[in-house]
Amino acid sequence: MNPHGPDEPVYLPAGFLWSAATAGIKTSGYSDVALAEAPLGASAAAMFTRNRVVAAPVEVGRAHLRKSKGRVRAVLVNAGNANCATGKPGIAAAERSCAVLGAALEAAPQFIIPSSTGIIGVPLPVEKLVAGVPALAAGRAGDVDALRSFAVAIMTTDTRMKLASAEFAVGKKTVRIAGVGKGSGMIHPNMATMLVYLFTDLEAEPGALQGLLKAAVDPSFHAISVDGDTSTNDTVLLLASGASKVRLAAAGVARKFAEALRGVCASLAEQIVRDGEGAKHLVRLQIHGAKSADEARTIARSIANSPLVKTAWAGSDPNWGRILSSVGKSGVAVNPAKINIFFGEQQVCKSGMAHRFNEKQAHEYLKQPEFEIRIELGRGKHSLEFLTCDLTVEYVHINADYST
Amino acid sequence: MNPHGPDEPVYLPAGFLWSAATAGIKTSGYSDVALAEAPLGASAAAMFTRNRVVAAPVEVGRAHLRKSKGRVRAVLVNAGNANCATGKPGIAAAERSCAVLGAALEAAPQFIIPSSTGIIGVPLPVEKLVAGVPALAAGRAGDVDALRSFAVAIMTTDTRMKLASAEFAVGKKTVRIAGVGKGSGMIHPNMATMLVYLFTDLEAEPGALQGLLKAAVDPSFHAISVDGDTSTNDTVLLLASGASKVRLAAAGVARKFAEALRGVCASLAEQIVRDGEGAKHLVRLQIHGAKSADEARTIARSIANSPLVKTAWAGSDPNWGRILSSVGKSGVAVNPAKINIFFGEQQVCKSGMAHRFNEKQAHEYLKQPEFEIRIELGRGKHSLEFLTCDLTVEYVHINADYST
Repeated sequence: MNPHGPDEPVYLPAGFLWSAATAGIKTSGYSDVALAEAPLGASAAAMFTRNRVVAAPVEVGRAHLRKSKGRVRAVLVNAGNANCATGKPGIAAAERSCAVLGAALEAAPQFIIPSSTGIIGVPLPVEKLVAGVPALAAGRAGDVDALRSFAVAIMTTDTRMKLASAEFAVGKKTVRIAGVGKGSGMIHPNMATMLVYLFTDLEAEPGALQGLLKAAVDPSFHAISVDGDTSTNDTVLLLASGASKVRLAAAGVARKFAEALRGVCASLAEQIVRDGEGAKHLVRLQIHGAKSADEARTIARSIANSPLVKTAWAGSDPNWGRILSSVGKSGVAVNPAKINIFFGEQQVCKSGMAHRFNEKQAHEYLKQPEFEIRIELGRGKHSLEFLTCDLTVEYVHINADYST
Repeated sequence: MNPHGPDEPVYLPAGFLWSAATAGIKTSGYSDVALAEAPLGASAAAMFTRNRVVAAPVEVGRAHLRKSKGRVRAVLVNAGNANCATGKPGIAAAERSCAVLGAALEAAPQFIIPSSTGIIGVPLPVEKLVAGVPALAAGRAGDVDALRSFAVAIMTTDTRMKLASAEFAVGKKTVRIAGVGKGSGMIHPNMATMLVYLFTDLEAEPGALQGLLKAAVDPSFHAISVDGDTSTNDTVLLLASGASKVRLAAAGVARKFAEALRGVCASLAEQIVRDGEGAKHLVRLQIHGAKSADEARTIARSIANSPLVKTAWAGSDPNWGRILSSVGKSGVAVNPAKINIFFGEQQVCKSGMAHRFNEKQAHEYLKQPEFEIRIELGRGKHSLEFLTCDLTVEYVHINADYST
């Protein structure tokens, strides 16, 4: 039932094929195009970036989902180029790649979803992309290695692939969900996140899937931040092949599926933060006592996006004053005199004031690769776990020389 | 008429005395307490932080200004400790420092404004502060050296003092304004900024000064950002001694004064960004074609606070796609197809798409210590200049080890 990480056994949903190839779009020479196909088609739900600047593949993907009424045959992903700020030629390039793949799979283009990630503002080398289609078509397989090759090809500055899966039984049948995703900078999802593809063999209508997807995304991809920058290409796509022959509408299935999907999304979200650009520490912010989940999220984001807080974490500096200040600047009408802050078990701020604590012990605690910070607001009953990371010298190095 | 920087002749307003001393609050051993006095009193206007977490001196300063109806005898500043998140003992410490200075100057405490900057959450060592009062009182002088010593003592991570001044003639009389300020991290002023003290010998009522101060702060301290963090101690204080015998209400004076004050504030704001923690590049964002000044400011802040944009600047990387993406995530309903971006004279993005440009030349342009980026939105007639800086490895170093 529990979602598994990339190195553990993968619960592989039936009804999908995956493949990857090297098309020369990444300058590194690594694999950079990936295909996921549901040979018999799949029902789809999707969430896209709320950035006003939207990449061409997001526009094309949205249009295709409308036209196909939420049915998808295949997803074509390239890494190394975002196909964003590329105007009408960018749209045409995305459409062309769908047409070429559609022809290879004998599917109409509206059943193909294109996805891109990488640099913004550089024309997509679409000839390279379509030249990779035959290799993608020839390499299709329904095994774990094929899924892993898909997960690797979509990576950009990621240092590790992201993969999670889960399964649950319904009578004698089994439903499986496997998801892959990529980070690792420009991570501050708003509406959806990065590139995440979720595959399940559940049988469901697109409309019903959409609500389940949103419910799983809110506490996972909407509760993480690496650097506060919302990408132009964020996409979460859920495909349901139906091959398990278990219907979502059957008794008890929706609850089990929702739980399993949340678990897979939570694991992927955590993997993405853990592999945040230059990140040395995974930070679990536990926001308690908020008036609503949205309020808790606003405060968590204000903390998670403060350069002063993030650099203090990089130095394992128990500087809780910067955290308190970030809560204060969040725009939420907090009463500082009601705020408590804990580093792990140790309280460092009580009623908005310094609480005598063992600074050396706190420093040691914050030296760990993963730690927890609890903030009690004393305003209401809502709480939220939000994952983020530190801002390190390596983050600056990674991003100070990207396109040149 | 033009405001002058710290190394140029200072137009010194009459009616003020300044001094500084070393009280041992900074661990560095540098001067850390400063006094500014108007022996015959001054009319005051002030703007304070909008952070919900407010330092004790800000609360006390606000209360004193209410009680004194905007009249101020002296300002007592300490650097090295923010006296924030210090609860009632923090308020008592700020009050006590005002009482001790008031006694030394034979003034009631409500005519004293306290100011603090430094670490949050550590009790103010008020005994050290009050022990420094005799030296401050004994050292008072009305010359440029005294003003400079004030400007130096209030510095924290600043590498240079900030000082600007201006003068204008009214008949045979002269009105002078001199201002000092400090940065250099946690700079994203909201309402006011950092610590800035403006001294003038104009004769004016507190109420009239307040409007002039706000008008000067909006295009200066409200149009800069170093790291997007709003401090708990931000303060801009304007004191008018009246010693010039030129009344604000006299014909033509208000306009001249407003212009001179704006110039001094703009110079100080620029000096603060220029000395931003770890900053290697001063960036002038020119936002054009916004529907309002507020909209332009929202977009400028979204760009200026993007870690991906700021790190690209650190590497002189002409990555305009990150800028476009930051405009898109600002929340303003921009139409990407109307956006143009220029690095200096060179256009890099036209109608939301890549515009063929000389990348090497752009890289060279962005290598300069100061450069300009123009963003045309095509939405309206409002424009704004906003100053910011890059995010460097040095910023991380400075902030990853602050309190420990």
